[in-house]
Amino acid sequence: MSITKAKAAVLVAGSWGTALASVLAGNDLDTVLWSRSKDHADELNASRMNAKYLPGVLLPEGLRATSSIEEAVGGAHAVVFVAPSSAMREVARLAAPYITNETLIIHATKGFEIENDTLKRMSTVIAEELNRNEEEIVVLSGPSHAEEVVSKCPTTVVTACRITEAAERAQDLFISPYFRVYTNPDAIGVEVSGALKNIIALGAGLSDGLKFGDNAKAALLTRGLAEIARMGTAMGANPLTFAGLAGVGDLVVTCTSTHSRNWRAGSLLAQGKALDEVLQTMGMVVEGIRTTKAAHTLAAQYNVEMPITEQLYHVLFENKSPKLAVEALMGRGRTNEIEEIAKTTKENWLL
Amino acid sequence: MSITKAKAAVLVAGSWGTALASVLAGNDLDTVLWSRSKDHADELNASRMNAKYLPGVLLPEGLRATSSIEEAVGGAHAVVFVAPSSAMREVARLAAPYITNETLIIHATKGFEIENDTLKRMSTVIAEELNRNEEEIVVLSGPSHAEEVVSKCPTTVVTACRITEAAERAQDLFISPYFRVYTNPDAIGVEVSGALKNIIALGAGLSDGLKFGDNAKAALLTRGLAEIARMGTAMGANPLTFAGLAGVGDLVVTCTSTHSRNWRAGSLLAQGKALDEVLQTMGMVVEGIRTTKAAHTLAAQYNVEMPITEQLYHVLFENKSPKLAVEALMGRGRTNEIEEIAKTTKENWLL
Repeated sequence: MSITKAKAAVLVAGSWGTALASVLAGNDLDTVLWSRSKDHADELNASRMNAKYLPGVLLPEGLRATSSIEEAVGGAHAVVFVAPSSAMREVARLAAPYITNETLIIHATKGFEIENDTLKRMSTVIAEELNRNEEEIVVLSGPSHAEEVVSKCPTTVVTACRITEAAERAQDLFISPYFRVYTNPDAIGVEVSGALKNIIALGAGLSDGLKFGDNAKAALLTRGLAEIARMGTAMGANPLTFAGLAGVGDLVVTCTSTHSRNWRAGSLLAQGKALDEVLQTMGMVVEGIRTTKAAHTLAAQYNVEMPITEQLYHVLFENKSPKLAVEALMGRGRTNEIEEIAKTTKENWLL
Repeated sequence: MSITKAKAAVLVAGSWGTALASVLAGNDLDTVLWSRSKDHADELNASRMNAKYLPGVLLPEGLRATSSIEEAVGGAHAVVFVAPSSAMREVARLAAPYITNETLIIHATKGFEIENDTLKRMSTVIAEELNRNEEEIVVLSGPSHAEEVVSKCPTTVVTACRITEAAERAQDLFISPYFRVYTNPDAIGVEVSGALKNIIALGAGLSDGLKFGDNAKAALLTRGLAEIARMGTAMGANPLTFAGLAGVGDLVVTCTSTHSRNWRAGSLLAQGKALDEVLQTMGMVVEGIRTTKAAHTLAAQYNVEMPITEQLYHVLFENKSPKLAVEALMGRGRTNEIEEIAKTTKENWLL
């Protein structure tokens, strides 16, 4: 008599998807990683490596890849969406026929869907395609480079969902001795934070590329966290979330590590490369660039001050020189820090 | 007819004192840097360098050194105390006879005075020795490596004082195109934050020394910020301060830069060196070690949870292995992040 393992599907097989699938497989789940490309899936199965996105790392037993969405998602107890934000709707649509109302839905993608001038959070996009209540969807986020997770470096994340039971089911699936999972009821704050921090990471790369030093970067992070929190709270988030792992934690790891694509894109821009050229050099999605555009729109819609986002928007899309952008940030009037932190918030809470 | 420049005294001539004196001299103040050692003062004046603490950096005109406390402090409009925390009382006592009630008093030292089991903030110590009201003393803090300040890298700090006019006078003295100064009324929060972040920096050095990676360090910073804010608020600070430059800003720069002495001490401990040996190797004051002891006492006095401080205390003073300390932090029960962030706070504000 065989005991059937719980099955989890992870879509898609990028670096973060592969890392999360490795955590699940390590927790003895029957884990299927979906790649759109049959060649990529075959290669993953044959070589036991994801040479393109996580070179040199051996995938754990219990993890297999497929390019059949039905094979990946059918019968899964949990589906983890990790598609790039621009592809999320399409991937959710492909998976929808094989998902039931009992399937636990988790996503771990940092970015917004941008169509013309409308923006949607990832949980909204997935809920629309799966015909589910958005509040049932769990958001997984936190300071977590994929490379370190597969090397089993100590890592902490949050699983955020308005429905506590769903957040805890996701916590149970992922938690392990090296992967510590906290729950958090504020899915909106965790999503907004994860998306917007990529803007500040771009800025940090720019600052480092200009050799401005650690003092300048720390100032950028601090003021960046304040503007993320202002925007997030305007969108309905709990301000406490920005002081947590998906807020300051993820911001720190993204801005201070050279693993980050957004940081790298910023540092290339600082060298005077044009945006098109940077995107070509990278050969990967740079969420922070799309997110800067999105946040610029959001700031206007919600009437929230986002001075760093605004300057980056000028650099990325209006050819402003990075040096002038930084000078604009440094040269603002003399102010009282507390008043400035508190002024755009609805209540007198922290950020 | 000659116009007399405003005079500022900076005590003592360590790296941060020298950097702050350079900012003041650059702002056209008659700036005197005091060193306890006549040889050191003479060498500074002759070589125009502080070879011991800021090698390779030429000091600006308008900056001179002396070992005479009377010459340094007498007639100064502002006195900036930057002595190590353990020497602050003695330096303030030496300066006291030459200070009037009109002299603006600023300090930029991060640490507590520790005598037996009593702890005092630096502004308390200075106020006692100068027979001044503690609330008149301005605290200068923020993410600011001395090496970068003298290289004129963009830097931001706060000048904190309950008396707005004093904070603004200090802001006026220091502000320059590369040195942006915000005021903040919360001197207690700025002092506590500046002292306690050194504990987390030690922990970050330990984590990096053990090759735990960026994810672990970001988690340490996030949880460290929460425990600093809990302790600070219990001592009377405004929680908003911990989201600002002297809070998260200084924490980030201290923990992620290898300039930091506390970080270096932690990384040496991780290599299995004993505490005495680390202190000998460093040859400089490591504030974080004394501060860990102090905070351990404070946590008990105020009944505040400080799990990171507690584990570091075990490592530093009870020979606990760093690996076991980290495992103790990772292995705590499954928790809800927001509840844990909020639970020890008096009101329901952010950290």
